[in-house]
Amino acid sequence: MRNTHTVTQRTNKRNGQPVRLVPLGGLGEIGKNMMAIEYGSDIAIIDAGLMFPDEEMLGVDLVLPDTTYLADKLDRIRGIFITHGHEDHIGGLPYLLPRLGFPPIYAAKLTNGLITVKLREQRILDRATLIEIEPGQTIALGQLRVSSVRVNHSIPDALAIVVKTPAGTVVHTGDYKFDYTPVDQAPADIGGLARLGDEGVLVLCGDSTRVESAGHTPSEAVIVETFDEIFSHAEGRILVATFASLISRVQMVVNAAAKYGRQVALVGRSMVNNAQMATELGYLSLPVGMLIRAEDINAVAPSKLVIICTGSQGEPTSALTRIANSDHRLVQIQPGDTVVLSSTPIVGNERAVYHNIDNLMRQGATVLHQGIMRVHVSGHASREELQLMLALLRPRYVVPVHGEYRMLAQHAQLAVKMGVPPEHVVVAQDGDIIEASRDGGIVIVDHMPCGNVYVDGSGVGDIGQVVLRDRRVLSRDGILVVVVTVDSETGQPLAGPDIISRGFVYERESEHLLESARGVVSAAISKHTQGRAHTADWNYIKNKIRDTLGEFLYEQIKRRPMILPLVVEV
Amino acid sequence: MRNTHTVTQRTNKRNGQPVRLVPLGGLGEIGKNMMAIEYGSDIAIIDAGLMFPDEEMLGVDLVLPDTTYLADKLDRIRGIFITHGHEDHIGGLPYLLPRLGFPPIYAAKLTNGLITVKLREQRILDRATLIEIEPGQTIALGQLRVSSVRVNHSIPDALAIVVKTPAGTVVHTGDYKFDYTPVDQAPADIGGLARLGDEGVLVLCGDSTRVESAGHTPSEAVIVETFDEIFSHAEGRILVATFASLISRVQMVVNAAAKYGRQVALVGRSMVNNAQMATELGYLSLPVGMLIRAEDINAVAPSKLVIICTGSQGEPTSALTRIANSDHRLVQIQPGDTVVLSSTPIVGNERAVYHNIDNLMRQGATVLHQGIMRVHVSGHASREELQLMLALLRPRYVVPVHGEYRMLAQHAQLAVKMGVPPEHVVVAQDGDIIEASRDGGIVIVDHMPCGNVYVDGSGVGDIGQVVLRDRRVLSRDGILVVVVTVDSETGQPLAGPDIISRGFVYERESEHLLESARGVVSAAISKHTQGRAHTADWNYIKNKIRDTLGEFLYEQIKRRPMILPLVVEV
Repeated sequence: MRNTHTVTQRTNKRNGQPVRLVPLGGLGEIGKNMMAIEYGSDIAIIDAGLMFPDEEMLGVDLVLPDTTYLADKLDRIRGIFITHGHEDHIGGLPYLLPRLGFPPIYAAKLTNGLITVKLREQRILDRATLIEIEPGQTIALGQLRVSSVRVNHSIPDALAIVVKTPAGTVVHTGDYKFDYTPVDQAPADIGGLARLGDEGVLVLCGDSTRVESAGHTPSEAVIVETFDEIFSHAEGRILVATFASLISRVQMVVNAAAKYGRQVALVGRSMVNNAQMATELGYLSLPVGMLIRAEDINAVAPSKLVIICTGSQGEPTSALTRIANSDHRLVQIQPGDTVVLSSTPIVGNERAVYHNIDNLMRQGATVLHQGIMRVHVSGHASREELQLMLALLRPRYVVPVHGEYRMLAQHAQLAVKMGVPPEHVVVAQDGDIIEASRDGGIVIVDHMPCGNVYVDGSGVGDIGQVVLRDRRVLSRDGILVVVVTVDSETGQPLAGPDIISRGFVYERESEHLLESARGVVSAAISKHTQGRAHTADWNYIKNKIRDTLGEFLYEQIKRRPMILPLVVEV
Repeated sequence: MRNTHTVTQRTNKRNGQPVRLVPLGGLGEIGKNMMAIEYGSDIAIIDAGLMFPDEEMLGVDLVLPDTTYLADKLDRIRGIFITHGHEDHIGGLPYLLPRLGFPPIYAAKLTNGLITVKLREQRILDRATLIEIEPGQTIALGQLRVSSVRVNHSIPDALAIVVKTPAGTVVHTGDYKFDYTPVDQAPADIGGLARLGDEGVLVLCGDSTRVESAGHTPSEAVIVETFDEIFSHAEGRILVATFASLISRVQMVVNAAAKYGRQVALVGRSMVNNAQMATELGYLSLPVGMLIRAEDINAVAPSKLVIICTGSQGEPTSALTRIANSDHRLVQIQPGDTVVLSSTPIVGNERAVYHNIDNLMRQGATVLHQGIMRVHVSGHASREELQLMLALLRPRYVVPVHGEYRMLAQHAQLAVKMGVPPEHVVVAQDGDIIEASRDGGIVIVDHMPCGNVYVDGSGVGDIGQVVLRDRRVLSRDGILVVVVTVDSETGQPLAGPDIISRGFVYERESEHLLESARGVVSAAISKHTQGRAHTADWNYIKNKIRDTLGEFLYEQIKRRPMILPLVVEV
């Protein structure tokens, strides 16, 4: 396998122009999926997702792909093709569309609906071009011919995107599994994939998320049985928390509610919006009279009610977290309630999810979650399915996508084990510029710096490593502001130093330490101003204050707060 | 079941003096286990552990139990009994011993050894009294008779502690499982537990950690087979990362190394110290000549070497994390290395663990971890074992311990399912004062505030909620220091305002925003000082600056940094 660390010089072009693949997000991480596929002067983008920040990205709300590579190529972007309507595939659109010059967005019906809801919320819908596509339909864009094939995932209308170029065909699977008994829609179009394989696939970009799981991911139908069991036993209310975009799961709960004669209330803004949109588009079907308003839940007997809400990942402001904290306007837990967390905690969310479970149980609810009952199945292909995809498409080259490094590497190993020559498999990273042609091989020809673009509040991209590093220092040991007032004429200190601390120690209980710190600062100032005229170099003295006080505090209490010396000249 | 939220008035004493149980840590959390068992004027403490901070506890290094309950009872503490030598049971000792007046510590041989290493490192060994105990041996302490029973866990010498009082017998299981084929020592003393049951147990305090797992936790012997498979296939070096205290796992790796003719190097300070101590005490046996120094690993052929190191949880300064980051003095990853992570990520550590795996694979190592291979088994009892413990002891009352709330609650449900009357089962929390007597029932009679004691640097207990709250604000959006210089005679501003930001925005790229902010502050100051004499109320004006600037920034950029107005009077 080619590794990310070897960047080979551009191959000569004797074998015709290659197709270029530039992953801008999603390789080496789960989230912010985005890839540019380029041939000649035509670029098709696949997905434009976001990522939720990890705990090192202090104060960051969202993370976007870095689209620097595209900045000087806006006129060549023919369209953005969206594989499906999850946040890590569509969530970047509101921020990236303006940067990319609002290229047209091509997506299947439901995906289109979800994007519409999102762009309307962010008030840029009127500037966007949305074009609905169907599997099998081909869009001609310059030298590119783009079509799609139906796959299964945990949301309807999931597509693999097929980009035909003169150099060959690139198939990007999107997120997929093979579900032979899906709850929504039809099974994946295995025949269509096989035909692509027969025609010849140059490059497969395949979802690697679940490569570490042996076998075949269970069908969504498996949980129908679990829900049947839950509904047949529950005597009180049932609350089901899941992702707002998991329309098929919502449908499943609705079906169970119908079977057991319960009414359904939807709670959580995104749950309500998505369900409404999905209903309008025909992706969610609720029997007449089943849906009640969240305001009316207390008018329904507990045994006749299901509440479907957001918050299965312990998101701080979500409905379920509010309910768990007894802080929801409409829903309060009652003893006898059964709460079902119909999702698996995403890595990093475990503590928040378990915290909610604890709080729900404290209030007397029975909580059923993936740790003790099969209330969720993955939407991603396990190893046997990855092999099936490889066997159907028989690609010349393989570029594993959608996964952390270890997943990409294992997906690559799997391809090699199935007979793809190691030099035909590329484990790439975001920002790699990959070129492939039938006879010229597949090569990483260059690498663009391709970091994270942070969204904090309404600021996009104005938070960089300096700010994050400061936040990390502040978060660990707080800050001490040291104020010294000096005479601008004599250069001698007039008053102070004053020390104000925040997040360092509790001032009232640490007066002695702060008093000593003042002494240390005074001594440092005296030492460096004594005997000098007003030419005292205050930048130098500031550094001395920082160093001396820093050493003193570390010695005294083994902490390293940020120290901010301020000199006020009067 | 009695719930934590009902605190019942003290029962009258017509039924004789009750035994008192006061959990000081470990109930509602995994970590900092500690319980006081009290009868009349005698107190026995069980365990004195620490907990690692979660991501909300910014800058905190360690968390200790709050021993306020004991502060006025030091003269009644007869001893601290340690169930086994893991950090969450012994790690609090160096900090708590001085606070508790250095009561004697009773522990089995290996536990004693681990405590000795720890107290020596912290330089208080000479002030401590350590007394070695053996299962079956009884210590008479006032009206208490304390003995112990051998159980299995992932470390040798794990004990359940038995406290006999005139009110009845309390059995505290410590951490346990029933392993019929343990790698270290003998199986749990089932006969001894059954005899206790025959004699009559008043209260069982039982480990709840793994109540959510059905069946029986696999024997440690299961992984012998896994390691055999790994060793028989690996052609290069093998690195095994595990807990330094997991002596039995280290022994297993040593055995496999012996079988396959590999030499062993130990890497990581605590791994070396613990292994040395365990060898001296006879708990770890290494064939002569097998152990080599970490400095000499490059002199051994890769196929003849095993490295056992710390860092299986992704701890930032551990050996494995350094190795993964190419930052270890002695060990560099080579292609062909097989790295085994022989532990399961503790909740909250997942990202760090996966990050290490990614980095190891990037350097060409094959990484085997619990996600893809059975390289670890739990040391805690699953549901069938919890039932076995209940069946053996047949306790009158049950107090689930060692677990988050949901685990305690499910353990309680299990006891009820086995026939313990619900009113005989108490789901308690840290700080509850529980009284139990044969005829007086079991009741939470009172509750002491019992929070976390934070260790940050060398400060113990000087970080409270105020400091942590400040750190959270600082970590999210940074700080703006606003400096205003005023004439102390006229009360009018002389210069400024100056605004210095850290962790808020990158100053150079946000000059415009900060310039506008200065304008907003100036306006606020003018408005509130204009036309006044030197009586301007600067505290009032500071609040105005904070509010006005806060609103402005939130409106502009949707962030809420800490705002620290400083008025310098000259």
